Amino acid sequence: MNSSLLLSTDDLLELYVNKFENVRFRSDNTIANEPIYYFISHEGKLIRPLLLLASCNMFEGDLDIALNPAFGIQMFHNFTLVHDDIIDNSDVRRGRPSVHKKYSVNNAIISGDLMMIYAYDYLSKVEGSQLRDVFNNFNDTAGKIIEGQQMDIDFETRMDVDEKEYIKMIGYKTSVLLAESVRIGGIVANTSDANKELIYNFGLNLGLSFQIKDDWLDTFGTGEKFGKRIGGDILQNKKTMLFVKAWELADVKTKEEIKVLMNHEDENEKIERMMNIYNELGVNNLIENQMKEYFQKGLGFLEKIAIEEERKLPLLNFAYKIYNRDF
Amino acid sequence: MNSSLLLSTDDLLELYVNKFENVRFRSDNTIANEPIYYFISHEGKLIRPLLLLASCNMFEGDLDIALNPAFGIQMFHNFTLVHDDIIDNSDVRRGRPSVHKKYSVNNAIISGDLMMIYAYDYLSKVEGSQLRDVFNNFNDTAGKIIEGQQMDIDFETRMDVDEKEYIKMIGYKTSVLLAESVRIGGIVANTSDANKELIYNFGLNLGLSFQIKDDWLDTFGTGEKFGKRIGGDILQNKKTMLFVKAWELADVKTKEEIKVLMNHEDENEKIERMMNIYNELGVNNLIENQMKEYFQKGLGFLEKIAIEEERKLPLLNFAYKIYNRDF
Repeated sequence: MNSSLLLSTDDLLELYVNKFENVRFRSDNTIANEPIYYFISHEGKLIRPLLLLASCNMFEGDLDIALNPAFGIQMFHNFTLVHDDIIDNSDVRRGRPSVHKKYSVNNAIISGDLMMIYAYDYLSKVEGSQLRDVFNNFNDTAGKIIEGQQMDIDFETRMDVDEKEYIKMIGYKTSVLLAESVRIGGIVANTSDANKELIYNFGLNLGLSFQIKDDWLDTFGTGEKFGKRIGGDILQNKKTMLFVKAWELADVKTKEEIKVLMNHEDENEKIERMMNIYNELGVNNLIENQMKEYFQKGLGFLEKIAIEEERKLPLLNFAYKIYNRDF
Repeated sequence: MNSSLLLSTDDLLELYVNKFENVRFRSDNTIANEPIYYFISHEGKLIRPLLLLASCNMFEGDLDIALNPAFGIQMFHNFTLVHDDIIDNSDVRRGRPSVHKKYSVNNAIISGDLMMIYAYDYLSKVEGSQLRDVFNNFNDTAGKIIEGQQMDIDFETRMDVDEKEYIKMIGYKTSVLLAESVRIGGIVANTSDANKELIYNFGLNLGLSFQIKDDWLDTFGTGEKFGKRIGGDILQNKKTMLFVKAWELADVKTKEEIKVLMNHEDENEKIERMMNIYNELGVNNLIENQMKEYFQKGLGFLEKIAIEEERKLPLLNFAYKIYNRDF
């Protein structure tokens, strides 16, 4: 493929789907592969692989090569979801039973492990000269993601998580993988270290904005498209940006009410009452501002990349699409 | 270090322990690292890293480089143990509570995941020109290990596992990682493809002999040194070489007795009665022959490697040590 050809993310999606919709792994992993095929037969929004491909395309890299690490990044993301769902006891994912529900916890552990191995396998399908750069960065990112998951769990039993801690947690849990995606796109395109740094920071801030929106959607989104149970975060006492802001603003009486709600048994009532508190404290507006702030900060890094502005358009459009999504 | 200096595995162990006994991982993974430090503070026999180092040293490779993938291989092995113990519900490992018992299942899932990431991290600390060779092979091996674990689980509910299936299962579950260890030693030493193939096959057959002995020790070993509960395989209805051979030799009446024992509730009685069956059928002798056969086959590959015989001695001695171990 001609590397200077500029493609839309719709075109990139088509390339990706064409290559991987019938992907088959090690042929003798018959049983352990089954939950993986089940999981990837209903892919999510494919944000990470599309970010990787759009970044690579922006820097005029070879998309034929970039497709493999794009798939690797998505497999890594999927692995974290499969294990996360066990840990969080989440029974629904992308509108269907999660892997441990559909199969078993043991199957979900094993197939998740295998997904991570496949992730590394596809990530290593880059040029020999790029391998070191991909792995050094990716291993650091992967470690952060696990730490973010661990922090997310630890926060469940705490009330006083402040905004700084929260931002660190979602930075690790979510943003670094988005940032790594666009950076690997840059690595495959052999762009400069300065550009890799800029595009990484673009991804990092886009990721923060993305996760804050995700928190918002978990409570205020419409369940159908979202594919998860609405209010799941509330039920699990997750420390979302909504919660962190509410706790910051709440008076003593409201704080007491929130504390009691943590152990409230009626699930629907728990969700409703927490939503009321969020509404009363007006956290919605605050959150909208934060999303915008991180998003704009991310765009600032994209602007600084010294290439033709036109080449940035597909990635820019995609960033706006992520920002404005309602699921 | 002078690469032509030939070291014993005791010397190699000292190098390894000196370098890694106080290893510290990503400093901010405080919580997720804790179960890892717990686990590696009581390492096992370190067979895999010593095989890797001995192979590298045999081929006159740079041990300073080999130490890192040696640690990576051990971390990968440890990751499989941590997740395996969850899956098998094994409460004891190396004479202490297993990770999910000491901490929690969720902690064990997360820390196991992190161990796999650290494994890849240390595996990638080789020369740039060796990275591709290490990863192509290792990813394939890693996939096989997971498949072996899956087969091991699936066999628990089957009676008619034949020897061929059993050998495939332990080949995947255990042998390929021993084989990969010595191969990576060869890769780091930049030896020829022919030598890598020979040393791999040496490791593969050594691994089969090793696992058959492991099966034997699980039933007939002495618990103290072994660090696991004696008879654990029997309790879990694991299809070990003992079982496979017993099933092959048993008459209709004994087969019925074995079937009934699968669901026998009194644990000590179950172990005792299965041991009696093994003794009556004389499977011990058969198994000893098999161990010897695979061991000799492995040595045959080592012999074919065209280097000074003297350089093979430390690896050869270590192979005998593994073969003759009683724990």
